Amino acid sequence: MTHRFVHSDRVQFADTDMAGIMHFANFFRFMERAETAFYRSLGLSIVDRPKDAPHDERVGWPRVNATCDYFAPLRFEDAVEVEVLVEEIRTRSIRFIFRIRKQDGILAAEGRITTVCVRKDKASGEMRAVEIPVRIREKIGAAPAEIIKRPK
Amino acid sequence: MTHRFVHSDRVQFADTDMAGIMHFANFFRFMERAETAFYRSLGLSIVDRPKDAPHDERVGWPRVNATCDYFAPLRFEDAVEVEVLVEEIRTRSIRFIFRIRKQDGILAAEGRITTVCVRKDKASGEMRAVEIPVRIREKIGAAPAEIIKRPK
Amino acid sequence: MTHRFVHSDRVQFADTDMAGIMHFANFFRFMERAETAFYRSLGLSIVDRPKDAPHDERVGWPRVNATCDYFAPLRFEDAVEVEVLVEEIRTRSIRFIFRIRKQDGILAAEGRITTVCVRKDKASGEMRAVEIPVRIREKIGAAPAEIIKRPK
Amino acid sequence: MTHRFVHSDRVQFADTDMAGIMHFANFFRFMERAETAFYRSLGLSIVDRPKDAPHDERVGWPRVNATCDYFAPLRFEDAVEVEVLVEEIRTRSIRFIFRIRKQDGILAAEGRITTVCVRKDKASGEMRAVEIPVRIREKIGAAPAEIIKRPK
Repeated sequence: MTHRFVHSDRVQFADTDMAGIMHFANFFRFMERAETAFYRSLGLSIVDRPKDAPHDERVGWPRVNATCDYFAPLRFEDAVEVEVLVEEIRTRSIRFIFRIRKQDGILAAEGRITTVCVRKDKASGEMRAVEIPVRIREKIGAAPAEIIKRPK
Repeated sequence: MTHRFVHSDRVQFADTDMAGIMHFANFFRFMERAETAFYRSLGLSIVDRPKDAPHDERVGWPRVNATCDYFAPLRFEDAVEVEVLVEEIRTRSIRFIFRIRKQDGILAAEGRITTVCVRKDKASGEMRAVEIPVRIREKIGAAPAEIIKRPK
Repeated sequence: MTHRFVHSDRVQFADTDMAGIMHFANFFRFMERAETAFYRSLGLSIVDRPKDAPHDERVGWPRVNATCDYFAPLRFEDAVEVEVLVEEIRTRSIRFIFRIRKQDGILAAEGRITTVCVRKDKASGEMRAVEIPVRIREKIGAAPAEIIKRPK
Repeated sequence: MTHRFVHSDRVQFADTDMAGIMHFANFFRFMERAETAFYRSLGLSIVDRPKDAPHDERVGWPRVNATCDYFAPLRFEDAVEVEVLVEEIRTRSIRFIFRIRKQDGILAAEGRITTVCVRKDKASGEMRAVEIPVRIREKIGAAPAEIIKRPK
C-alpha cells in the first residue's frame, strides 16, 4: 500500500502575479496536480471512469478542507518537487500532506487537503459520503509517523 | 432583438502576472464574463437549465474560435467596461465582438469569440451542431454595421 | 476602525470544473477579491502606490497561511456574499476570516488568510517583515469576539 | 537557427470546466507554456535575467495578438503534444503557431501568438518596441513554408 509519491513540476509565467512570485492560490493547483499524478501512479484516477468501475459504483472526491503554510516564494521557471504523503486514510476520507520543495531543497510550502469519498445517490441524485471502495483502499495506506514528521 | 450590452468589471490581483499587467489569457475570461452577463440580461443563461427548456432541447455553446488584439495593458484595480456586440448570428452559430475599455475611454483590447450551438445527440451521446432555438434567437440580433465599426 | 465588510460576487463559468461546481482553489480568489475590496472601501489598496506613500515606505502583504473549510458547493451563476472579518491585527500581520454565503444564506465556505506586512530592505533588496504603518493601522481594527463567532 | 519545438503537457483537473472539457481560455496557457519551454530549450528565457544581459539591455515580450481555432475538445488527463513553429520573425516581433495534438494524433486546436520585443525606456520608464537582440535572434529562425503548412 503506497503512502508517498513525488511529482516534479515547474512554475509557469501565468502562475505568477504582479509581486513577481507565484500567486498563493496556485499552490493549491500544484497540490492537486501532484495528487492526481499520485492516483495515476497507482493505476487509478481521481475521476472514476467506465473502465474502472460500473457507473453506480464510481466515486468522486470533493474537498472539505484545504490549507497551506507559505515559507518561501516561488518564481517563474522554478523547478519544484511536490512530495505527496497520505497522512490519514479513514473509512470515507483521505487527508494528504503536500511538501513543495525548490531544487536547492528549500521547503517553499506545506499544505494539506482533506477529501471525502462520495457517490451519487440513485434516488435523490445528491452526492453522499460513502466508504472508500476496496479497489482503491487496497492501494493506498497511511504513511508511518516517522515519514510524516517534517525534517528540521 | 438585443445586439449590444455593456458589462462593468475590474482587474483583480490574481489576474496580473510578474510583468505587472493583466495576463493575456485572462482577457478571454473577461470576454466570457461579459458574454454570460449579456445572456443573463436577456433572461437566458449560457448554460441551459431545467427551467429554460426540457432536457432534450437544452443547448450548449462550445467555442470554435477566439481571438484578441491587445492595445494597452490593464493593471490591478483598473475598472473596465466590456462592450458586447453581436457581430453575426447564423443558423447555428454566433460571433461576438468584445471591446474592453478603461475608465478614461482607452480601448485596451478588442476580441472576438465564435460559438456554436450544440445539443447532445440522443443515440450517440455526441455533441452536434443544431439550429439556435427560437426562444434564444428571438432575443438576440446582429448589430447594425455602423455600431460594429470601431470608432477611431 | 473598520473590522467588517461584505463583498458581492458571482461564480463565473471559468470558475467551475468538470464536477460541475466551483473548483476548490478558486475560493481563495474569491477571498482575495473581497480582501482587496475591503482595502478599497477604506481608501487603501493592497498594493501601495505612489499616491499613498513615498517609495521607501510602501508595503506589501504576502500570505503566510491560507485555509478553507468547504460546507456546500457553489455553482455557475450563484450570487454570493463574502463577509470579511478582521480576526486579529498584530504588529506586523493581519488575519482575516472570510465567510462565503449563497443568497439563501447557506454558508458555502469559511476561510482564513494570514498576511504579513513587508517592505523591501534598501540594502539587500530582500522583503522583510515590518510594523504595519500607522496610516493603515488607524483604519483597521480587530472585530469583537461576538461578531467573529460563527452563527449556528 | 531553431524554428520548431514540441512540448509535452497534460490536461489538469483545474483546466476543465462544467462542460467536462478544457476551458477555452486555458488553451492559451498551454501555448505559453510551450513557448517558454521553447526559449528554455535554446538556453534563453522569456524573462530576461541578470545572467543573460545587463539590466538596460533586457527585453520583455508583451502580446499584441492571440488567436485559437478549436477543433476537438480536450478532457482531464489527456496527454497532449504542443508543436511550436516560428511562423515569422520580424525586426521587432515574432509570430508563433501552436498545434495542440492528442496522443492519437488528432489536432485539438491551432493557435497563434504575436509578441513584440520591448525594453523599458530609461527616460520615461515606458515600455517601447525595440529590435530583437542579436543574442536572441541568432538562435531563432522562421520555419520553412512546407513545415508551416498544416497537414491535411
